[in-house]
Amino acid sequence: MDIHPAGTRPTRVAPTAWFTGQVWQDPIVDAPEPARVHAVSVTFAPGARTHWHTHPLGQTLLVTTGHGLVQVWGEAIRSIRAGDTVWIAPGEKHWHGAAPDTAMTHIAIHEAVNGSYADWLEAVTDAQYGAVRAGA
Amino acid sequence: MDIHPAGTRPTRVAPTAWFTGQVWQDPIVDAPEPARVHAVSVTFAPGARTHWHTHPLGQTLLVTTGHGLVQVWGEAIRSIRAGDTVWIAPGEKHWHGAAPDTAMTHIAIHEAVNGSYADWLEAVTDAQYGAVRAGA
Repeated sequence: MDIHPAGTRPTRVAPTAWFTGQVWQDPIVDAPEPARVHAVSVTFAPGARTHWHTHPLGQTLLVTTGHGLVQVWGEAIRSIRAGDTVWIAPGEKHWHGAAPDTAMTHIAIHEAVNGSYADWLEAVTDAQYGAVRAGA
Repeated sequence: MDIHPAGTRPTRVAPTAWFTGQVWQDPIVDAPEPARVHAVSVTFAPGARTHWHTHPLGQTLLVTTGHGLVQVWGEAIRSIRAGDTVWIAPGEKHWHGAAPDTAMTHIAIHEAVNGSYADWLEAVTDAQYGAVRAGA
């Protein structure tokens, strides 16, 4: 058994290749094989968001604070708030992040296949993200 | 994509066959195959705890509120507090729960094999649990 007390693992800046804006990641678990689950707490500053991406075995989000946004390719942007859970199916192209004026933190849970738990695609443009002002 | 807004899925009473004391479970995800991850938020009243058990692919705990206890068979009882994470290896016999005088809520993440993510064993006796008063 491994216990990591709160505050003993550094917060990471999320890779700028895959995120827009200020995003921080706090590790929860990277389970060793034969397990394959990974979990991380992700904090998005207002306006920050992931790039479009997919997950080979899907992803679960649990919003822990704030108000955020999530969108599946071709569908409307939807609001998510603290306590909401989201299931994104394997291969479903999507993005998630903060709302324009409010930060959002969520726990993200996903499973790796051959060491990879996400396939990263293009950035969410300001025009795409701005659509929230009309529709969410 | 499935969004479950906060408060739209009922809290369950944890099965008395596997828990001692008052324990509640709030669902986070039961991912459909080929994914295999399950996650649940579990709230233990003071003194409440799981039975001894193992997980075929391990388990991750993230304490979200309060002060709890965790013990691996043959080792000392250890304290866990909000923000702490715990990794329990596959097959490791253990229990977890609240401290005697304080409630504890944790998120539990684990993976199923052939539909089962835990193998349940005997209850944690009051004598075993009471050991915390001397050692934790």
